[in-house]
Amino acid sequence: MSSNDSLARLAAIIESRKPANGGDAGASYVARLLHKGPDAFLKKIGEEATEVVMAAKDAQHGGDSAALVYEVADLWFHTMVALAHFDLAPADVIAELERREGTSGIEEKALRRAQDRDSEESKGRAP
Amino acid sequence: MSSNDSLARLAAIIESRKPANGGDAGASYVARLLHKGPDAFLKKIGEEATEVVMAAKDAQHGGDSAALVYEVADLWFHTMVALAHFDLAPADVIAELERREGTSGIEEKALRRAQDRDSEESKGRAP
Amino acid sequence: MSSNDSLARLAAIIESRKPANGGDAGASYVARLLHKGPDAFLKKIGEEATEVVMAAKDAQHGGDSAALVYEVADLWFHTMVALAHFDLAPADVIAELERREGTSGIEEKALRRAQDRDSEESKGRAP
Amino acid sequence: MSSNDSLARLAAIIESRKPANGGDAGASYVARLLHKGPDAFLKKIGEEATEVVMAAKDAQHGGDSAALVYEVADLWFHTMVALAHFDLAPADVIAELERREGTSGIEEKALRRAQDRDSEESKGRAP
Repeated sequence: MSSNDSLARLAAIIESRKPANGGDAGASYVARLLHKGPDAFLKKIGEEATEVVMAAKDAQHGGDSAALVYEVADLWFHTMVALAHFDLAPADVIAELERREGTSGIEEKALRRAQDRDSEESKGRAP
Repeated sequence: MSSNDSLARLAAIIESRKPANGGDAGASYVARLLHKGPDAFLKKIGEEATEVVMAAKDAQHGGDSAALVYEVADLWFHTMVALAHFDLAPADVIAELERREGTSGIEEKALRRAQDRDSEESKGRAP
Repeated sequence: MSSNDSLARLAAIIESRKPANGGDAGASYVARLLHKGPDAFLKKIGEEATEVVMAAKDAQHGGDSAALVYEVADLWFHTMVALAHFDLAPADVIAELERREGTSGIEEKALRRAQDRDSEESKGRAP
Repeated sequence: MSSNDSLARLAAIIESRKPANGGDAGASYVARLLHKGPDAFLKKIGEEATEVVMAAKDAQHGGDSAALVYEVADLWFHTMVALAHFDLAPADVIAELERREGTSGIEEKALRRAQDRDSEESKGRAP
């Protein structure tokens, strides 16, 4: 099965957990997040992004990179809950990624911006 | 084209940007991130996760939810760069998501944990 | 000089950089952040928090902990810019920390919540 | 009492909660965080930074800014736990902030970097 099918099927399950679709906050983790509203799943996004960073730093220092897969799955999953809340889907994200890939020259533009940033990186902020 | 093909194709492009595969840090944004190493793309993951949260809060308060798609695409993209650095791929993340979906009863377990957390949520931490 | 004086003096400088107080976005980093509005400094808070986490992970794996001081200073600094934007000050944060310290029993309450969370920590989320 | 005294006193309490100083993970939230090690308090830093961002976005959209004070206190508190774990203190952070303030011209340098970044900000990343 393609991952399109996988992500679309997962998105369909999340969609079915919305309060408007009869999701039962007493029987489903996702229904409960959607019932509680944005702060509940946005807080998870911040937390899971931090866990991605920690898992990557451990892998960088010799740890098992399998933990990174686990944390990225958690992060993608909670972003899908956020998308569903706003009537969006992973297909929209993938379409955006395809759009960028197809935009000729766009990486070169990102590169020039990044090169400019390099000369700014030795920090030291004051008021 | 399925999103499996989309994500796999994007992952293949990222893979080709690795220093070991001849990626040119002077000509590609991704090659440059991979050349600089983990801190460069991990910092972006933290930044993009924050932008996802800000876009979602704006949408919650009446703003355009299209910005959320854009920021989630940025976040997924940079997590794919991190995966590539550690010789992992979006297919691994999707396999992990499928594995969870197929684990009977797992949502109920997550739910019980979440319900336990609810009673703890009125905060107030001290040393 | 006490750090109260230090933080209060730094807050006074930040305050003077507000557009309403004549802060010049062309001559001051803080004036520029305040002129651009919340997303500019909130994005920095997400980025600097990630850099704190990365510096701590490096220190955990044998790196120099001095980098952690640097990143925490960056994080506190940008939270002070956010406070100033909303007409708040570090003194408000310190008063809140003192309030908690003085609230008898509050740590025990936080502890019970944390202990409850422990039994929930073996993860595994599904829709 | 000055906030120097406040922060230093809070840091002293946190210090006393270290396992090596007899901190009891069964009786103190901080002792428990320090006993569990870096991932426990670093995860909280990511989570609390996200809550700062959410509270600020709510305030931007008309909400009560008092919540921002609360979340910044949570964030500073957990960074103090991280500092303590690595034998550092808020006094080190304040010394770093003072050092920057006293470095003539440093804000102008930060400003030039920030101005350079401005021309790069219309995004669009591709591989």
